[in-house]
Amino acid sequence: MAIQERIPLPAPRSRLMGKVYLIGAGPGDPELLTLKAARLLAGAEIVLHDALVSNEVLAMTSPAAELINVGKRAGHKLLTQDEINALLVSYAKSRESVIRLKGGDPSIFGRAGEEIEALRKAGVDYEIVPGVTAALGAAAVAGISLTDRRIASQILLSTFSRRVDGSAMDWGSVSSTTTLVLYMPGADYAEVSERLLEGGLPADLPCVIVSNATGSRQQVRWSSVGQLSAEERLPAPALLIVGRVASRDVQGLGESFWGSDQKDRVSQQPSVI
Amino acid sequence: MAIQERIPLPAPRSRLMGKVYLIGAGPGDPELLTLKAARLLAGAEIVLHDALVSNEVLAMTSPAAELINVGKRAGHKLLTQDEINALLVSYAKSRESVIRLKGGDPSIFGRAGEEIEALRKAGVDYEIVPGVTAALGAAAVAGISLTDRRIASQILLSTFSRRVDGSAMDWGSVSSTTTLVLYMPGADYAEVSERLLEGGLPADLPCVIVSNATGSRQQVRWSSVGQLSAEERLPAPALLIVGRVASRDVQGLGESFWGSDQKDRVSQQPSVI
Repeated sequence: MAIQERIPLPAPRSRLMGKVYLIGAGPGDPELLTLKAARLLAGAEIVLHDALVSNEVLAMTSPAAELINVGKRAGHKLLTQDEINALLVSYAKSRESVIRLKGGDPSIFGRAGEEIEALRKAGVDYEIVPGVTAALGAAAVAGISLTDRRIASQILLSTFSRRVDGSAMDWGSVSSTTTLVLYMPGADYAEVSERLLEGGLPADLPCVIVSNATGSRQQVRWSSVGQLSAEERLPAPALLIVGRVASRDVQGLGESFWGSDQKDRVSQQPSVI
Repeated sequence: MAIQERIPLPAPRSRLMGKVYLIGAGPGDPELLTLKAARLLAGAEIVLHDALVSNEVLAMTSPAAELINVGKRAGHKLLTQDEINALLVSYAKSRESVIRLKGGDPSIFGRAGEEIEALRKAGVDYEIVPGVTAALGAAAVAGISLTDRRIASQILLSTFSRRVDGSAMDWGSVSSTTTLVLYMPGADYAEVSERLLEGGLPADLPCVIVSNATGSRQQVRWSSVGQLSAEERLPAPALLIVGRVASRDVQGLGESFWGSDQKDRVSQQPSVI
């Protein structure tokens, strides 16, 4: 009797709560999925994916899986983030496992924060499966090290959009030993170039645009902050790596383009921004 | 005759040049290897790996492969970077493929820059296979989004060491909407806390230490910039995520700990550091 009492009652069907996997699909090449992502996709019942996830990656999901593009609906109407959150919670109530598939890594510019919060509030179990973020795919394709220790100490991953509080991104805080990676630089390279120059970055500082990194249509364009405005537009998704590491001749680089007056400002103004 | 002339002569054995693959082993869990990394490891002849790469990952290499720990030799003497570079070039002359396996992603704090340069100079073909960097593994384990768009616009990946030019890292440039990820924070949390406070980061700003992220001995410790000094030391490899996203209650967070005087400095001082 005591033993029987310890056996939990089966949960009624209506109370079934599945698990949601927030999975990074990597930068493009389906071989850059993790083993874990590939295993989960191969056994998937239902996959809610962003528009950015490539067809090659989607082809790796179970043929039995239901695929839902939450990036765009048939009529090209965008689902709101709230609608996506609600879908995840709703499917978790009727499925054992639900996959939310995002390009790159879920925790970088993937809006996972709001989805995680919605799942927590609804008491839905979830797990994040990290992936190779686009910056790493782009660096690999361009053959550069984002933190070549001789010239780069840190990496700033940013976007070309506004900050949370509506103010402009402050790339003026980028130092001569910081590699700046701009996700989603957009199509107006002249504007990007102008904003970088306004932020105090030198015109001859190297940069490289990588479009469709690791994907079948990848393109790499080497340039500089000043010349960027004249470059032909590459198709999205693309990102921009700015800094001394973005040179094809890293060793030959001096600090020439970082004027000594700019560097001096560092030590004099430890500003919190 | 014309056809025969077009058939290239076989290269003499001494001129054989293999290919070197610089591969990211991911944050720890062997299932977080990419499919490509797993395929290359399974067919490997020789693998030069860092000390940080876990035994579980090494177990995925071909049983026929020769494994060389270039992080530490038997006698615990470290190989210099120049010695590792020379080994890669040397093995590429006698093997069809050589694998250089690094923890996380090769292009982030992995010293790939110098190896790439050595391979280029020697005319050795190489390919970078990106991996999941530790920051992404740690964020997944802690269940946080590094760029929750409501409170974080950008991510600074940095270390607790000095900058290239010997000066201290300038975390004073970290804004209220920047997530700071410190790789290798070391064992002296009091010193880390002090440096972050000196940089102007608020004492009650949340942070989280993740040790052995995604590995079998992972640990997560939630703290704040001010309380960090009192935390028990966690084993390396570890990293520290600092910022509003490192709270277990992201939505409940205000900007309270970022004083308005600090924020005001942004717009007034577009400093280049």
